[in-house]
Order: sequence, then structure tokens, then C-alpha cells
Amino acid sequence: MTETATKVQQWTNLAQQLRVDSIRCTTEAGSGHPTSSMSAADLMAVLMSSYLHYDFDKPGNPNNDHLIFSKGHASPLLYSMYKAAGAITDAELLTLRKFGSRLEGHPTPAVPWVDVATGSLGQGLPVGVGVALAGKYLEKLPYHIWVLLGDSEMAEGSNWEAFDHASHYTLDNLVAILDCNRLGQRGETELGWNTAAYEARAKAFGWNAIVIDGHNYEEIDRAFALAAQPNGSPTVIIAKTIKGKGVSFLENKEGWHGKALSREQEEQALGELHHVRSMTYPVQKPEQGQLPQEAAKKAVELPRYDGKEAVATRKAYGDALRALGAANPNVVGLDGEVNNSTYAEEFAKAYPDRYFEQYIAEQQLVAAAVGMSVRHKIPFASTFAAFFTRAYDFIRMAAVSQANIRLVGSHAGVSIGEDGPSQMALEDLAMMRAVYGSTVLYPGDANQTAQLVALMAEHGGIVYMRTTREKTPVLYSPDDEFRIGGSKIVRQSERDRLTVVAAGITLHEALKAYDQLKSQRVTIRVIDAYSVKPLDEETLFAAAEEVGNKFIVVEDHWPEGGLGDAVLEAFTQRDGPMPQIVKLAVQSMPGSGTPAELLEDAGISAHAIVEAVNVLLKRI
Amino acid sequence: MTETATKVQQWTNLAQQLRVDSIRCTTEAGSGHPTSSMSAADLMAVLMSSYLHYDFDKPGNPNNDHLIFSKGHASPLLYSMYKAAGAITDAELLTLRKFGSRLEGHPTPAVPWVDVATGSLGQGLPVGVGVALAGKYLEKLPYHIWVLLGDSEMAEGSNWEAFDHASHYTLDNLVAILDCNRLGQRGETELGWNTAAYEARAKAFGWNAIVIDGHNYEEIDRAFALAAQPNGSPTVIIAKTIKGKGVSFLENKEGWHGKALSREQEEQALGELHHVRSMTYPVQKPEQGQLPQEAAKKAVELPRYDGKEAVATRKAYGDALRALGAANPNVVGLDGEVNNSTYAEEFAKAYPDRYFEQYIAEQQLVAAAVGMSVRHKIPFASTFAAFFTRAYDFIRMAAVSQANIRLVGSHAGVSIGEDGPSQMALEDLAMMRAVYGSTVLYPGDANQTAQLVALMAEHGGIVYMRTTREKTPVLYSPDDEFRIGGSKIVRQSERDRLTVVAAGITLHEALKAYDQLKSQRVTIRVIDAYSVKPLDEETLFAAAEEVGNKFIVVEDHWPEGGLGDAVLEAFTQRDGPMPQIVKLAVQSMPGSGTPAELLEDAGISAHAIVEAVNVLLKRI
Repeated sequence: MTETATKVQQWTNLAQQLRVDSIRCTTEAGSGHPTSSMSAADLMAVLMSSYLHYDFDKPGNPNNDHLIFSKGHASPLLYSMYKAAGAITDAELLTLRKFGSRLEGHPTPAVPWVDVATGSLGQGLPVGVGVALAGKYLEKLPYHIWVLLGDSEMAEGSNWEAFDHASHYTLDNLVAILDCNRLGQRGETELGWNTAAYEARAKAFGWNAIVIDGHNYEEIDRAFALAAQPNGSPTVIIAKTIKGKGVSFLENKEGWHGKALSREQEEQALGELHHVRSMTYPVQKPEQGQLPQEAAKKAVELPRYDGKEAVATRKAYGDALRALGAANPNVVGLDGEVNNSTYAEEFAKAYPDRYFEQYIAEQQLVAAAVGMSVRHKIPFASTFAAFFTRAYDFIRMAAVSQANIRLVGSHAGVSIGEDGPSQMALEDLAMMRAVYGSTVLYPGDANQTAQLVALMAEHGGIVYMRTTREKTPVLYSPDDEFRIGGSKIVRQSERDRLTVVAAGITLHEALKAYDQLKSQRVTIRVIDAYSVKPLDEETLFAAAEEVGNKFIVVEDHWPEGGLGDAVLEAFTQRDGPMPQIVKLAVQSMPGSGTPAELLEDAGISAHAIVEAVNVLLKRI
Repeated sequence: MTETATKVQQWTNLAQQLRVDSIRCTTEAGSGHPTSSMSAADLMAVLMSSYLHYDFDKPGNPNNDHLIFSKGHASPLLYSMYKAAGAITDAELLTLRKFGSRLEGHPTPAVPWVDVATGSLGQGLPVGVGVALAGKYLEKLPYHIWVLLGDSEMAEGSNWEAFDHASHYTLDNLVAILDCNRLGQRGETELGWNTAAYEARAKAFGWNAIVIDGHNYEEIDRAFALAAQPNGSPTVIIAKTIKGKGVSFLENKEGWHGKALSREQEEQALGELHHVRSMTYPVQKPEQGQLPQEAAKKAVELPRYDGKEAVATRKAYGDALRALGAANPNVVGLDGEVNNSTYAEEFAKAYPDRYFEQYIAEQQLVAAAVGMSVRHKIPFASTFAAFFTRAYDFIRMAAVSQANIRLVGSHAGVSIGEDGPSQMALEDLAMMRAVYGSTVLYPGDANQTAQLVALMAEHGGIVYMRTTREKTPVLYSPDDEFRIGGSKIVRQSERDRLTVVAAGITLHEALKAYDQLKSQRVTIRVIDAYSVKPLDEETLFAAAEEVGNKFIVVEDHWPEGGLGDAVLEAFTQRDGPMPQIVKLAVQSMPGSGTPAELLEDAGISAHAIVEAVNVLLKRI
């Protein structure tokens, strides 16, 4: 045989094995997506045996390619590839979707060769952009990022954010493989087999686009060879494929999405696929790379605010991020075209090589952070806190992906003033608290902000910081210490009548309330709950012991899911009676106005706190 | 003068007045976006005086065009148009951004001529698609939808979802006007003045694209004339413009985004703009249309489940939606390419003319619902509950828009089983509770679901229902009554030892726990809190009185922001001691498994409830 013929024979055998195994493991599971796997089997057979560079024994090899199944429901194909590569056994393959198996219904990093969880469509490519940015601009390593896309998910706008950004940043290390099998979950996709339409869109977005028959090995091979050549643009291979390819009663048939074959059907299918015994097909290893020498980290020299003038916490964020940048070369800045508002521009100006503008594309913003996390960078991504709602699905999935990302949202709450409710984050604490394993910080002062930013860099998981638009007085010394899970008692005496818990902008209102009440000879304890999650329960419990069971929690947020609920939650964990807790929060839709007018209107001003204290103490 | 010359003179005068007023009102406010208004002034002058059909005295005229400023920060221009049209006074214009003014920093429906709130970029066009679908396919009215887009926001994927859907549905009543002024907030946009790139992208997405000089009146006029002709495709006018056009020190200058002029600068600017006295420029009125005769509504004949077999609440949703469709011709169905999972397909099959497939584009899905609400339809939009996280910003903004939309999310919680965490909604209750004025429902049985779906149709604001994948026993009779804000006591006796609050899938676990405990001679009260927001506080308070101060709340959701927090919140509103409340919720990241295995693993199974009861009663 010619070399080509040999290769084609090998690809054919491998692809058939991948199909057989995709069917076998889903039938064993009783659920899953065999037909969505079968359409891409030829593509993946050629990729893994001829183009992928991956050392399954050393998933940490920095030169490894990245293979992201954006169509996560094709996990049977992915896991069958792992088996074909010799990375997992046939027995493990057959644990698919079973309780306790790492081979879940959709891929997650429970498997060491999976970079990120997929299954919420339209996320693999934006994350791939993040990895590609790291590979091309930060690590300068030869690896490729291969992203397998389904055609249904091309309706997700997030994919077009990724197309846009990938060409903007000339990511020629990124290759998308579009498995255009025509059929979605419930019927035909919008564009069906109109590969020309996909081609035109991709080209208009600045990509190389190669249209092929996804079952013709020579076309596939040629396409991968072209795509693997760096030429200044990312490449998409638009492969016309047949869903269920290889089995007569599955091919191009509706009603077979997400459906396992019965044992009888399996037998018939395997017969048609010329079921051969399982073979192992070695995957080329990349050169063994060295993890880049940890560039000498220096001690962080955080900005210090002497308190002579008021400083917005968003500004302190920018200053601190720049300081982190000086100390640690792994810190990366990302922002959604508002870096002069979030003050990420402080970092961008100082370290332009480690700053990647993500424009007004918040899904891509968070996805790029996840991609940076895959490459062990320390990404900080910022935009207006309100606009992180745009990326909630990406944040949710980042938690499933075990990503380590830091999100910083500015312009929180009604205290932003005149811009109105579209720009006011009033649900961000609720949203971010309800993310698995998340950390939520809401500093009230510049020195505190700076220290917390430094702690964020060292902290894993999804870490969120909420910053304030307005300049606020500096309350703390640069030498005060703060911690994730901490709080500060900012006012206390032996005659405290109740406890006010606040954070961020409302801490300043609480302090004004304190002064007003003190002039009336009423003293209150004021706690700065800057760590909203985890919350410093001990300090709250101590207040209940020492001050008594009356609390007011005041926050620039809707009543649901924020600091007030965090305090309530804390007390349910305590033995002993629940205290009386009054929540002051934003109860009606704000409009425009000055920060002071809006805080007053929302019932979270110093005046409102004084009133609530008086009511609770039955002074009126 | 020729007719054209007369028109050009009028457009010129109007455009200069719009620029003058955009500057005046922002300088008066001390903030706002004059330069982003000035770039689009010529475009809007031609539109309002020659193409827009709108009766400002009758904003409810069904034939009115719809003008959506997707670049909501150009509100000074919009309000200046209102003044020019004679709809508001100059004095009111100068209240911009002041507390109590309806002229907020970004447009909201506080103004009767504003359809939807904008200011979170990338939302105007997707909503416009929803209005256009209603206009073309449901109302068959001649109105146009004109959407003013900024160039920065073209990075938002949601806009490409809209481009995709608009051409798919041949929405030739939709015209996008892209104000390509090159400058974003912090610098140049990704594509700058590369109008050819925008043109290629729009055409690849199936649109007519007309590139013009946005300050050349004849080009503008010709473009609008072409765009207004129905030709089977939506049209985008890509207008190359100059930010700050008309004032020498503002034109095409960085550093002027979102910045008002000082009084001195204002004086200089108005001098350059040949400040003329304010004129009124009448806007053509459309023919006075009749609101379509309320098509005879029939009584809803809801499906009735006799309890002989288990029924998934998602299936009951589909059945009930179909029944609503029979009774009320204003009911519209929308789904994100999973209607065979959400069971919206029941409606789609019965009423294909009122069903609009939104494919896998959840932002467009919610935006289409908002657009339908603008046209007084009763939209029900469904997808997996987890995937509504994709559209959280749209849901948040829908509340600012005072939209009436109904969202139904299926496949909630770990109880979906094998598909794994990417498909499990575990934060949806937190997310939806933290939406202003929202209603959150979580039925546990098919008959209850059907009744609640009927109530949703009559209920305003953002109404969310969470449904369950698994088939569950029918608990209620078709004649039982349910209400928004209600609950049901499903088990009670005079010797109840504590109260378990559950909803949806966990209600069934609670009932199993009841049976197990009863066999041990322990009776508990079980409350079905199917209305999570508003919560039936009275029934909870009564339980505290009658049963005592021990509660267990069990939910298939993260611990933050769900039913447990709703119950806690309720008790803070009550006089009297806080009860002891134990929250059972999902505490660790689930994997794949059977529903029973995952409920057990999450600690929210019947077994876990029995254990929690025993601990709380100190029986172990």
C-alpha cells in the first residue's frame, strides 16, 4: 500500500472503533449521545492519529495541544479516543455516566485530560481563545488548540464573540472543527448543510475557512495540514457530516439525538460497523517542555493610602492590580472595554503585554479568564458589576471547570448615581454567592481593597470583588490586616445597643449613622462584613453574645441573596436562638439622581439606618 | 430651492438643534454622553422627519413605528428628538438625569415612547427582532422597527444572535442603523472605521447592508428609502460617522466618551453649531390603527391528570401551554431548540403560527419574549433552567423594561441524573428571586403545574417557573386550587413535631420521609411551597404557631438564594422569635448518576430528611 493508503486504512479502523465504542458505552449507560459522536468520528480519527500532540502520561506537559469538545454531549467520542489512545481501559469506558465515574455525561476536569467542562454550548471556542492568547502571546509555545464545535451551537452569540476576538488577536494556533451534521436536538439546524453560509460568516469574521466532506479522509487530512500551518489567522474546518454516520438506521435520521441504542439495536449497529477488536492508536507526544521557570516573584508592594483624600475602591483595585503585576509575571489583566472605569487601565498601561482587551463581549471576557486559568495564569477580569450578569452561564460553568478566576465588578448599586438602573449591579452578590465554591468580597476602603486584591491572586476558585464608583473616605491604615473570611468591627463600646452589619458603600452610611446616634447617646456596634462569602460568622456570633440579638444588615443590593441573606444563613448554622435581623436593601426600581438621593430613596442611607435603629430599639 | 435642497436644509437645522440640545441637557446634568449623541444626529434627523411614523399623542397606536436606541447612552439625542417632535418641553429636557425625572441616564419605559430599557449594550436589536416577529407574523401591521446601534456593541454576541434570527425569519420590517463613530469608551473599537468588515459580516448573516457617510444627507436619505422597502431581508445601514460631529474640539477625539461639557465649553460648542432657536419638527403619524379586536378568548380547558401514572411537570407545562393556546390567541411560544425536552413542542405542534423557534441562542430567546411583550402578546419562553443563566442580563433588563414575560426552565437540579452538572440548574432560584418584581414558581405535581401555567398568563412582570425532568407522582386533584403566593399543607396532624418545607422534586422526597417517620410514630407537617416568590408567609407563620419553631427546608439547589433563604427572609418579617431553620441543599459539585443516587449524594433525599428530622428532634 502507498503511505496514504496505509494511513487511510488506519484512520478507517480507528474511526470505526470510535463509533463502536461510542455506541457501546452509551448503550451500557442507557443514555447519551452516540449519533452526535459518530458524525465526528472520522474527523477525530485523523486528528488524534496524525495531528494531535499530546502526552497522556503527562497532562501537565506545557507543550501538549489542547483538545476542547465544545459539543460536550459528544463525550462518548472523546472518551473512546482516550481508550484508543491507551489512556483509559475498556472497562472504564463502560462506566460512562455511572455514579462515581469520572466519565460524566459531559466532560469535566474530573478527567485529567479535560481542560474545561463543556455541555453548555457555545463555551468551548471562547475558552479556546483564552488558551490561544496565552499560548501565542504569553507562553509562546508551539501547542495548538483544537475545538470541536457542533453546528447547533453556532447560533450562540458567544461563538461569534470568539470568532471576532480570535481574528482580532490573529490566533493562528487555534483551529475550530465544525461538525456540520445538520441535525440539532429537535430537528434541522437553522442553516442545515448550508456550509457556504458558515464559510461566508467565518471569512467575514476574519478566519480561514475550509469546507470539506467530513467523511473523506483525504479532505480531512488536507484541511488539518493547512490549519496546522501558522498563517496569521485562525482556521475553521467546516465539515459536512452525517449524524449517526456508519449505521444505516441512524444516518441522518431525526429522533436519534441524545438517545442510546437498545441492546438489539447495538448488535445490529456493531454488525454494520465491522466490529473489530479494540486497538490502541498512539498519539504523538510533543517535545517534553519545561514549565517556564517561575519568573522571580517579588514581594508585592501594595499602594498605601494615607487617608488625606477620598479614594474610590475601583481606583484602589487598579492600583493594586498594577502592583501585583510588578510582583508576579503570571498576573494577567482582562477587561470589557471599560478599563478607564474599572481602573484596569492602571495595569494595562504598565503591563500591556499581559493585558488583553476583550471589548464589549462579557462572555468572551470570562471565557478568556478561564482559558488563562487552564494555562496556570492568574487572570483578573473586570467590567461593570452589572454586566457580569451577561456571563453568568460562563461563571457557573467555570466552577464546574474548577477554574481559578478573579472577577472584579465596578459601579455596584444605586450609589453610582445618574446613569440609572441599567448600569447598577443590584443582583451581583446573589448571583456570585450562588456559584459553587465561590468567594465574594466587597471592600469599603482603598487600603482594604488593595490587600484583598493581593489575597485574590493567591486564592482558588471563582473569586469575585465588588467595587464602588464613588470616592469614599479611607477608613483603614495600610497596615491593617484583612483576610478572606474576615470582617472588621469598626465601632464598638461596652454599651452597644445593637449591631449594624454593612459593607462597601453602606459601611460609610453606617458610620454616619453611628455618629448621628452617638450624638443622641445611642451607641451601636458596626461590623464591616467585607468578606460576604465566606462570612466571618464568629464575629457575628460574638456580637450576638456581647451586644444582643438585634441586627440590622444594610446593603446596596436587592433584598434577595445578598449580604442580608448571608447573615441570616450564618445564624442558622449556630446553636441558640436566631437573632432579630432587619434587612435594609433596595426595595424599588431606582432611577437617576445623585448617589445621596438614590441611597436615601432606596432606604439604605445613614438616615434610614438611624430610623431602623430607632424602630428596633423602640425609641420611636 | 429644489425639494431636495429644502429637505436638506430642514435636516441640517434639525440635526444641529439635536446636537445643541444634546449638549445643553448634558451640561445642565453635569454628566452624560453628548458626543455619542452628536455622531448620530444627522441619521436621526432624516429618520424622524422623513421616515419615522409615530403618533406621540397616541403611543398605543398599533401602527406606530418602533424606535429602539440600543446605544442607550445616546439618550440625550433621543430626548432631544422628543423635544423636536413637540412631545416634551425644553424645560423637561433640562431635567435629564435629575432625581425624579423620567429622562433617566439611559432610556426606560418611564417615558411612554420608550419600548424597552437600554443601556446594557447589545440588547436593542435582539428585542427589535422580537417586535419584528410580532409585526410581521402575528399582527401583520405595516410598522417598521428602527434600531440605533453603536459600533462598540457589535462585539456583543447577542447582536449576532439577532442578525442570525432576523435573516432566518426574513424580517424586512427591521432596520438597524449602525452609528460607526470609531471610538468606544476607552479608545478605538475593534474594527474602527472598517465599514467593509461590518458590511461583510452583515451580508454573511443574510442582511442587506448599505454603507454610507453618516453625515451626508443624500446618502442617508437614499439608504432609509431602500431600507424601508420590504424585500425579504432585514437591512443594516452602516454609517461612517464622527463622534462629536459638529464641534471642532470634540470631533473624533479620544477622552470625550460619557463626558459633559463645562459651561464654557458649551458656549463655545453652541457657537460653532450656529445655535438657532428651538423649532418643532412634526413627525408623520401612521394611519390610526385599531387595536386588533380581542380575539374571542375561551375559558381555558386545562389538562387533568387522574393520578394513575406519574407525569413530569415539564410535560404538564407543555400540555397546559397548549391548552392556553387554544383559549387565548395572544399566547406565544418560544424555545431554545429543546422543545422536545421542555415540552413546548406541544404548543409548537398545535399552534405553529404562534411558535417561534429561537434555536440555541438564549439571549435572543428572552429578548424575543420581551419584544412580544412590547406588542402586548403573552410570551412563554422555555429552555433548560440552567441555560437561562445565559440570559441573566436580558432578564435583569426586562425588569427595568417593565416587560411581562414568562420563562419556564426545565431539568432543574441534580435530579436530572446522568447528564451531569452542566445541565443542572442549581442557581436559577437565586438568580430569578433577585430580579426586581419577579415571581418564582416551582410546582411539584402535574395538576398544580397546569393551574400555575394558567395563572402565569394573567400575571405581570418577570414570571419564572422551574420544572422537573423526572416523572413524579400526581399529588393533587385537578380541582385543587393554587395561587401565586400560595402554598399547600400536604401532611399535618395535631401531633406534628416539626415542619418540612419543600417544593418540586424535594416535595416527593419529603413525602417519602413522612411515610418513613410515620412508621416510627413521628409525624411532621409537610408544606409544599410551590410559590417561592412571593412566599406564603401566613402558612409558615401558622406552622410556627401550631407545630413549633423547628423547620427543615429542603431544595434541589445550592444553599444560597433559594427556597431556604426565602423562608428565612419571611421569618425576619415576622414579630416574634426566629425559628430554628435547617437548610438541606446541594453542598458539593454533583457528577453523573441516577436521580436517586444524586439526590442521596446531595443530602436532599428522603433519607437525608429523616436524618435531619431525627437530629433536630434529638432522636439520635
